Amino acid sequence: MIVRDFNDLRKTDRAVSDAQWTSTRMLLADDGMGFSFHITELDAGSEHTFEYKHHFESVYCMAGKGSITDLGTGETHQITPGVMYALNLHDRHILRAEEKLVMACCFNPPVTGTEVHREDGSYAPAEELAD
Amino acid sequence: MIVRDFNDLRKTDRAVSDAQWTSTRMLLADDGMGFSFHITELDAGSEHTFEYKHHFESVYCMAGKGSITDLGTGETHQITPGVMYALNLHDRHILRAEEKLVMACCFNPPVTGTEVHREDGSYAPAEELAD
Repeated sequence: MIVRDFNDLRKTDRAVSDAQWTSTRMLLADDGMGFSFHITELDAGSEHTFEYKHHFESVYCMAGKGSITDLGTGETHQITPGVMYALNLHDRHILRAEEKLVMACCFNPPVTGTEVHREDGSYAPAEELAD
Repeated sequence: MIVRDFNDLRKTDRAVSDAQWTSTRMLLADDGMGFSFHITELDAGSEHTFEYKHHFESVYCMAGKGSITDLGTGETHQITPGVMYALNLHDRHILRAEEKLVMACCFNPPVTGTEVHREDGSYAPAEELAD
């Protein structure tokens, strides 16, 4: 059994920050669960374009307020606590935080922890990271 | 993109209850994400023995207070908001809610939604459910 506390990990190098967001990696690929699990905080007023071409991701809103625009369909959905979106089609999207968002995120395949967002908003597939 | 709201789903048959817990299935196997994602609420004062012999599960505490005892090692860990446990060894365990617990749970392989807890605290593997 693995037991970890977000309140501890967010002060360590398991908390990865980029422009206006911080993702605390509670579970990564090497934990052997077959998925990774992150708590991601997005700064109030920030806007992010992501497209996980090589991953499925689900994102559950625990706190905050914002919206997501599906760039495939043009549809925008409000995000408030209790709303989950799942990128089952690797959907390219814009995520906006009106208030600071705190999200519980699952990735399949699991993130290894060494990925960086590329220009196109994606993470590289695992095989490229291994190179 | 799938968008669902816990506050709506918990009033539907996607909210499954058993003795002193309710699990609202935000994502199930047929969503094709490769994992399932549930919001599980455990009643204050309740105690549960589970052993997911055929699944990996991670559980993140969003609210409440309780503890988990690993029946393999005898160790007990406190559960408060921000604590996650991951059953990477299919660990048989007792989960206790001192206060009502609200947990974000990921299962791999994904739960289909038709499982029931068996006498031994497990869910059947997917192949048995298909019979």
